[in-house]
Amino acid sequence: MAETSLTAEPGKQEIVISRVFDAPRDLVFKACTDPELISQWWGPKTFTTTVEQMNVRPGGVWRVVQRDAEGNDYAFFGVYHEVKPPERIVDTFEYEAMPGHVLLETETFEDLGGGRTKMTDHLVFQSVEDRDGMLQSGSQEEMIGPMERLAELLENMKAQKPAAPAR
Amino acid sequence: MAETSLTAEPGKQEIVISRVFDAPRDLVFKACTDPELISQWWGPKTFTTTVEQMNVRPGGVWRVVQRDAEGNDYAFFGVYHEVKPPERIVDTFEYEAMPGHVLLETETFEDLGGGRTKMTDHLVFQSVEDRDGMLQSGSQEEMIGPMERLAELLENMKAQKPAAPAR
Repeated sequence: MAETSLTAEPGKQEIVISRVFDAPRDLVFKACTDPELISQWWGPKTFTTTVEQMNVRPGGVWRVVQRDAEGNDYAFFGVYHEVKPPERIVDTFEYEAMPGHVLLETETFEDLGGGRTKMTDHLVFQSVEDRDGMLQSGSQEEMIGPMERLAELLENMKAQKPAAPAR
Repeated sequence: MAETSLTAEPGKQEIVISRVFDAPRDLVFKACTDPELISQWWGPKTFTTTVEQMNVRPGGVWRVVQRDAEGNDYAFFGVYHEVKPPERIVDTFEYEAMPGHVLLETETFEDLGGGRTKMTDHLVFQSVEDRDGMLQSGSQEEMIGPMERLAELLENMKAQKPAAPAR
């Protein structure tokens, strides 16, 4: 089974997360841009994720709120810089509780053929300290978990779709 | 006389440019957000700079075109993530001729008192290679030159303003 890889070289201000999905690129891209679908995999499994705003176009604003079992809210927001379906998304990302700490996110969707897609999430931080803080806060697990949930969702989406004609 | 400092540590994916201006913070912030003023200092001195679009608010898109003496155009664009007058601007930045290479820019405006302001432009690139490419392409001069032109513009702006009451 495919696994999620997370790379964070010492002293650098970036994190690269990637995973190969057993799903066609259009479907993976859709799962990453459709608010209805994102709320099903984004964030920790035990949290409720609400996409409050998600205008997937350059200059479009997005805002997502996660609620834990105790009712605490964790809000994230950003702005899209580039949206190139089904290949690439570039946006900014900020955690509302840590104002002023912004990161630049680049998601690429690579068609591997045979209905498989490699998704890479490249996160660039404003400093090494910001990057290391994110890794130390237990977010590493929080970054890998959703990719596994996305894999499950894609399996369900494929099962619901009518059989595609051979090509 | 104050000088522009440019810092680019080896192996890192960022550049920090800073300069102290002999002008109050509001004025410096205005010169960095008003299209009429930006076109007077942004870009090389021998180029004509046109601000085609500049919507200074989160999600607002900006696009600037520089034209050289031969009539060649060089276009730059991005999206604002945060605008906090007169303290801070966070946006994305892309050179149209190099699609897909995006950088995250954070401009901070620090009031030093006595009508002086320190402006810091923090540029974070998607890779060390992107950063080094920018430095090698002669852009170092192009990054410092505009700061000196901005200093001149601020002097002119101060001269045009009526004398402020003592406080």
